Amino acid sequence: MFTTFRGGQTGTWRVLSIAPARGDTLPIMPALSVTHADSIALPPAPSAHSWRLIGVASHLRYTERLEKIALTKAQAGLGRAEATRAALIPIRKNNAWWLMTQNERRRIFEDKSRHIADSLKYLPAIARQLYHSRDLGGPFDFLTWFEYAPEHAEVFEELVAMLRESEEWQFVEREVDVRLAKED
Amino acid sequence: MFTTFRGGQTGTWRVLSIAPARGDTLPIMPALSVTHADSIALPPAPSAHSWRLIGVASHLRYTERLEKIALTKAQAGLGRAEATRAALIPIRKNNAWWLMTQNERRRIFEDKSRHIADSLKYLPAIARQLYHSRDLGGPFDFLTWFEYAPEHAEVFEELVAMLRESEEWQFVEREVDVRLAKED
Repeated sequence: MFTTFRGGQTGTWRVLSIAPARGDTLPIMPALSVTHADSIALPPAPSAHSWRLIGVASHLRYTERLEKIALTKAQAGLGRAEATRAALIPIRKNNAWWLMTQNERRRIFEDKSRHIADSLKYLPAIARQLYHSRDLGGPFDFLTWFEYAPEHAEVFEELVAMLRESEEWQFVEREVDVRLAKED
Repeated sequence: MFTTFRGGQTGTWRVLSIAPARGDTLPIMPALSVTHADSIALPPAPSAHSWRLIGVASHLRYTERLEKIALTKAQAGLGRAEATRAALIPIRKNNAWWLMTQNERRRIFEDKSRHIADSLKYLPAIARQLYHSRDLGGPFDFLTWFEYAPEHAEVFEELVAMLRESEEWQFVEREVDVRLAKED
């Protein structure tokens, strides 16, 4: 199943902001749609009036068993009625990251950056889904998606700031921050 | 970059045999072509006269640093003139495998099955390339590709038998064994 995030003229989500966090940004569009499909053309046909990012909600790559149990217990699902704010943060990591071995990446991911442990306290306020994009040949390696209620906006900023300060984030060479609100 | 293995009427490789090792086989075709492209439609359009399997030569998922060094030192590249025999072995692993965490999979992959260590002695006689297919939505998770000279055919059978006897292989729910020879 392929998930397509299309920035364009129409969509369930209204775009509040599109800002580069590192490297090139994405063109400003007024709306974002999220669709799921079993078939897809890669890369998507270029368009002057929209952009499309495609990912796959794949299996977990770094999480260990006790972490998985804790995450499963703590996390909320997508699509909660009260979660009318969202963020799409596509990131690409540099060659140094991908030339590392799995255990070297894991060591930075969790043992040094505490990505999982430190994220746990933000759940279930912030619902998250990671989409893998690297093997699909797109401009980003990961499309990270977050949903939360307006009253958790500050908590979300804290989570984003925490991740950006981590050692893991030193390997991020491109990052765009798209903020969204659900149309009533 | 997407790699497409097309079983059909024409191709650089003549098909010697197509046999199911576990689960459903693939239709018998006389030839196999291997092509690389930056764009692709997924899934490929169905055809009565050919089948297409698509994968991506991705980063390593389980290998640790010392293993990576040993593998890099030992392995031969694809396309050696003397390597006129090849095998395409697509495999799909079961849900139990994918529900495990990364470290649980690694434990079976190497600590129990010794996939890397035991494979090392077959290099450089057997050149190998792994293509990831799972995130592309195809019928297999991995497309494994091997090239070797005719005089190493027996060594190759030994390698395949060794992998199939491993604990890791208990998680394989579909496997097809395609053997090939290069046209002169």
